[in-house]
Amino acid sequence: MYAFFNNEFLPAEKTFVHISDLALQRGYGVFDFFKIVEGRIPFMEDYLQRFYQSAEQMQLPVPLPEDPLKEIIFELIKRNDMENAGIKLLLTGGYSADGYTIESPNLVITQHVLPTVSQKVLEEGVKIITHEFRREMPLIKSINYTTGIWLQRSVKEQHAYDVLYHLNGEVTEFPRCNLFIVNNKGEVITPGENVLQGITRKNVLALNGDIAISTGKLTLTDVLDAREAFLTSTTKRIVPIVQVEEQIIGTGRPGQVTRELAKRLLEKENMY
Amino acid sequence: MYAFFNNEFLPAEKTFVHISDLALQRGYGVFDFFKIVEGRIPFMEDYLQRFYQSAEQMQLPVPLPEDPLKEIIFELIKRNDMENAGIKLLLTGGYSADGYTIESPNLVITQHVLPTVSQKVLEEGVKIITHEFRREMPLIKSINYTTGIWLQRSVKEQHAYDVLYHLNGEVTEFPRCNLFIVNNKGEVITPGENVLQGITRKNVLALNGDIAISTGKLTLTDVLDAREAFLTSTTKRIVPIVQVEEQIIGTGRPGQVTRELAKRLLEKENMY
Repeated sequence: MYAFFNNEFLPAEKTFVHISDLALQRGYGVFDFFKIVEGRIPFMEDYLQRFYQSAEQMQLPVPLPEDPLKEIIFELIKRNDMENAGIKLLLTGGYSADGYTIESPNLVITQHVLPTVSQKVLEEGVKIITHEFRREMPLIKSINYTTGIWLQRSVKEQHAYDVLYHLNGEVTEFPRCNLFIVNNKGEVITPGENVLQGITRKNVLALNGDIAISTGKLTLTDVLDAREAFLTSTTKRIVPIVQVEEQIIGTGRPGQVTRELAKRLLEKENMY
Repeated sequence: MYAFFNNEFLPAEKTFVHISDLALQRGYGVFDFFKIVEGRIPFMEDYLQRFYQSAEQMQLPVPLPEDPLKEIIFELIKRNDMENAGIKLLLTGGYSADGYTIESPNLVITQHVLPTVSQKVLEEGVKIITHEFRREMPLIKSINYTTGIWLQRSVKEQHAYDVLYHLNGEVTEFPRCNLFIVNNKGEVITPGENVLQGITRKNVLALNGDIAISTGKLTLTDVLDAREAFLTSTTKRIVPIVQVEEQIIGTGRPGQVTRELAKRLLEKENMY
């Protein structure tokens, strides 16, 4: 497997970053992640746009404009010859002489085996737990996953699939996924503020039509009282949520609206 | 200059970490930093104790117990032959196959030229600005400095020395320093909760005696109304604060209590 780093393609296992990098020393950097499905890259423009936006908001200049960056991505895909995979763009704070000041960012592009969601998860839905927290800069896809990774132990211990953040009663998102609920009026709602603008979230919102889908403020009670709930992400698409801690959501089975949206999302993705 | 990484001493400029490390990919790691002053390491036990505590709280096993770690530190100091310097211990999340799960942490030890505080800063005091924020896991010396580094631009633009965090009116700390004030009763107070337990802060607290020094809850108003204020850190020791944004603190000059404590702290440090 090849990676791209500082203007060259290198075997990924031989790609190293100097210890003075601000990502390593201070957790400072941004990234993005998208998938290749049977050779196609659904919604690539959206991911690239978000990557450049995150970088700008974090005061990190991307060393390449969009077109040459795309060429490098396609060249990497060609070299690695994998029809289904994930591509990660990582932009670090760069090598810093004083260990605190942003210098020239390093760009690392890697390709990964795409994790799949099991049929059991899709058919039975998952249990989630909750944690009082809000991400530091929710709109930026920064590399800071301190709390998310730290919570992995609790997630495993409680046999949960993921952990939902909330603060002052308001729910926001999962470490790496967005949340949707279907309320008792049949309306589909996802938190509008203080969340990462997920591309899958955006695509689900765009399915608004005969099913009403919108953004809004959601409390933990709204989630517990929901008829259905699900999470979205690039790799997971739509995963039904049927339990929050010890409380069952809706019927305790993946709901009809969730399954319909999952079907439509896949159709939309396959059009690319 | 030598660094220590994964059981070997390497020239620092040739010390690299593989791109799969969780510190680089997810900003996950802890560190500590202490200084060598004329060949001595004041309060070394305190720093090492905090390092092991941070690691444990972040679920990161340190690959070495304290005694062999100390031997490596002393060997590094000997090889680099610098009488005055900083030593940084960095423990990363380690090389992670899935980019999210903690594996075997990497330990990187580096030595640095110690930044000094100018005589002008000590004699005239500094201006600080404020920012609404609280660190994610305040008691852990994690590598996450996203907000601190991001704020550097504002600090420079406003000709400030540092930025003080506060949330819901309660002040806590600076990205890399602790805060103390002297109130109008002449009592010295530092925030007690939600702050990093700085070693210099601890040493100032231990000077409690004819000058009353304690921990307590402080609001932004307490700081603005203070007779004196100062910040503490390992490299800076005590730096007088004479201005918060556009408001002058006390007389606008470093105060008597601040100067007395700076003198006593230095005496204490020199005893090691």
